[in-house]
Amino acid sequence: MSEKLPKGFSYAGAACGIKPENLPDLALIFSDAPAVAAAVFTQNRYAAAPVQYDRTLLEVNPERVHAVIVNSGNANAVTGPVGLANARRMAEAVERTFGLDPWSTLVMSTGVIGVQLPVERIEAATPTLFGALQANEIGFDAAARAIMTTDTCPKTTSQQIQIGDAAVTIAGMCKGSGMIHPNMATMLAVITTDARLSPEAAQRVLKRAADASFNRISVDGDTSTNDTVALLANGLAGGVLIQPETPECEAFSQALTALSIRLAQAIVRDGEGATKFVTVRVSGLGNDRAAHQAANAIVTSPLVKTAIYGGDANWGRILAAAGYSGAEFEPDAAELWISGGATEDAYLPKLHIVSRGMPLAYDETEAAKRFAQPELLIELQLGDGPGQTTMWTCDLSHEYVTINGEYRT
Amino acid sequence: MSEKLPKGFSYAGAACGIKPENLPDLALIFSDAPAVAAAVFTQNRYAAAPVQYDRTLLEVNPERVHAVIVNSGNANAVTGPVGLANARRMAEAVERTFGLDPWSTLVMSTGVIGVQLPVERIEAATPTLFGALQANEIGFDAAARAIMTTDTCPKTTSQQIQIGDAAVTIAGMCKGSGMIHPNMATMLAVITTDARLSPEAAQRVLKRAADASFNRISVDGDTSTNDTVALLANGLAGGVLIQPETPECEAFSQALTALSIRLAQAIVRDGEGATKFVTVRVSGLGNDRAAHQAANAIVTSPLVKTAIYGGDANWGRILAAAGYSGAEFEPDAAELWISGGATEDAYLPKLHIVSRGMPLAYDETEAAKRFAQPELLIELQLGDGPGQTTMWTCDLSHEYVTINGEYRT
Repeated sequence: MSEKLPKGFSYAGAACGIKPENLPDLALIFSDAPAVAAAVFTQNRYAAAPVQYDRTLLEVNPERVHAVIVNSGNANAVTGPVGLANARRMAEAVERTFGLDPWSTLVMSTGVIGVQLPVERIEAATPTLFGALQANEIGFDAAARAIMTTDTCPKTTSQQIQIGDAAVTIAGMCKGSGMIHPNMATMLAVITTDARLSPEAAQRVLKRAADASFNRISVDGDTSTNDTVALLANGLAGGVLIQPETPECEAFSQALTALSIRLAQAIVRDGEGATKFVTVRVSGLGNDRAAHQAANAIVTSPLVKTAIYGGDANWGRILAAAGYSGAEFEPDAAELWISGGATEDAYLPKLHIVSRGMPLAYDETEAAKRFAQPELLIELQLGDGPGQTTMWTCDLSHEYVTINGEYRT
Repeated sequence: MSEKLPKGFSYAGAACGIKPENLPDLALIFSDAPAVAAAVFTQNRYAAAPVQYDRTLLEVNPERVHAVIVNSGNANAVTGPVGLANARRMAEAVERTFGLDPWSTLVMSTGVIGVQLPVERIEAATPTLFGALQANEIGFDAAARAIMTTDTCPKTTSQQIQIGDAAVTIAGMCKGSGMIHPNMATMLAVITTDARLSPEAAQRVLKRAADASFNRISVDGDTSTNDTVALLANGLAGGVLIQPETPECEAFSQALTALSIRLAQAIVRDGEGATKFVTVRVSGLGNDRAAHQAANAIVTSPLVKTAIYGGDANWGRILAAAGYSGAEFEPDAAELWISGGATEDAYLPKLHIVSRGMPLAYDETEAAKRFAQPELLIELQLGDGPGQTTMWTCDLSHEYVTINGEYRT
């Protein structure tokens, strides 16, 4: 890993004893200067205690946030008033240790649902986090590792852009491997930047970035109780204050979206049990919403995903999934192309499989060759309308079943 | 198997060479007397050629149907005008062989999508079917076996009821193992009865029965291109003509629904790779539709289904699934009970897991004991509204992935 990091942020990871065997399970992201904060959250009715806490914080104090504390190993979800009090205690432990004002610490949790959080272990470990903070890649990586659950690797990326006079850096970390689906699923992301953003601009660019990235991925179709993407912007890069609907905002938004797409794709690549990375492009429908409906049915179909796992060019399942998605289209209009390769840059030539809703006399060996690649591209055109979307998913493997049949035990 | 069969029906199964290794792949259900026919079909936009053919037949000639011909091994779906012509040729082969009027034979197909049907093999085998017809359990079982794809066993059941003076028999067979989901999924069912039904009564009771049975099961959430449930009523039991909204119709409807539920449950029990049979009851919502939304999210959640496979009492996933289903309810209202047993008659006492949206201090060993049973009952109450539903599903196992990763190859 070699990431440029924004000015004025430091990071730490530690083990506080929520996970067994002294595994890292507590992370802190800290900004020296007060940061403008924005976040997007799960749509699940069982929004976890930390999600409820953060929603309140963003109403009360969105412009002077200093920290994000994250634990893994316990979701603090379906834990009632005690859970909400525990989320608050996590924040207060940070605020006490660092001498911060109230309502300056965001809280995130991920892990098993319905078990009360052993919050005293987090409180006891907060001074350790204080000592462990580092404003460099070591700290950044340690924090990214401490938020992992079934993830097999930490997921980080950063990006630099020039906005007017200011050299701005954006750095993001995320976790997520199972229960991944719009709108969002057990995934957490913390994105730090030294850009100067107004609260309105921060919320707007984050929403746009999440819609184009984290809300376009699916591992298993489940949406978790804890999903949160948070953006902290401390302004230390200087330059003009970025306001909504300005050229500066557009530039920042594009960079943030590109970074978010890389993070989201990293989650799918590390999907539970995933052996293949799949891009599904659907176009030609009446509007983007219909395209999303069709793509969503394809990326969540267990039959499509097991066929891809097995390297079986069973394209009929792709059309069948679009067919039951509820999206409006003429079945006879379908055009389907398949491609694949070791990496996105090395895709084999597209193979035209279906035209005007009917299978072409394609070469089965060539189709199987594409389905056998680690990356697969499925392009489905369902008419000549303007509606289109791209989604990313992975295959459904034996290993997924193993991981999720034994998660708690 | 020991099934009473309705008067005037005979059945046959044969191998015509669509499947390899001389496996049975062609079935015929035949009524001596012209029968009133009704059917419910897939909602998939890629409705297969036989579905299109049958829809036309039921408009043209719903009162004088004599036969249903079914092939397995090839779905005749996404096959365009040639596919539709082939569906017609299947029907005409039967009509020619038996000297029947046009539009008197329903057609069903199941198997791989997007490959043209070798219809000449079916035409060549039709005289064989003629010779093989038997009005007894041997023929009935042979037909039920010939419609199987990934099914591991034939699925049949029958029922007798007294309607006025008439002793009426209903006998059903179905196939389906994967791609099973409302509205319906690769499942075919043919139900024969000697009851005297008006066409309106036949369609109405069949719709009602399908909604309470085949549309309440889910193996993997995929809806197929070919699903069809057909009812043939030849009237040979005599008695009054059963018209809609009469006590006779209600009696027949209840019997047909009970029989359909047994057939639907048999599909779930034989779900691809299934090791457990799961009943999900959701109640307390504003209306039945909301209850269905919540139950549907639970029975299609890969996380819930893998936890059940692993015998892991991970009830948090059940609440999380209801939470993202889109159904309106107060999270704090949730009550959850778990039970299970070797058979439905031998369930262990219900274990109360969640009350007022919060986990109770239940015994983990007792919970694990229930999750380890071959049959599991999940009861989730989400308020005090009148909306309720029951759905049936199975677990998601390694074997499911194996079956569906290698289906075509």
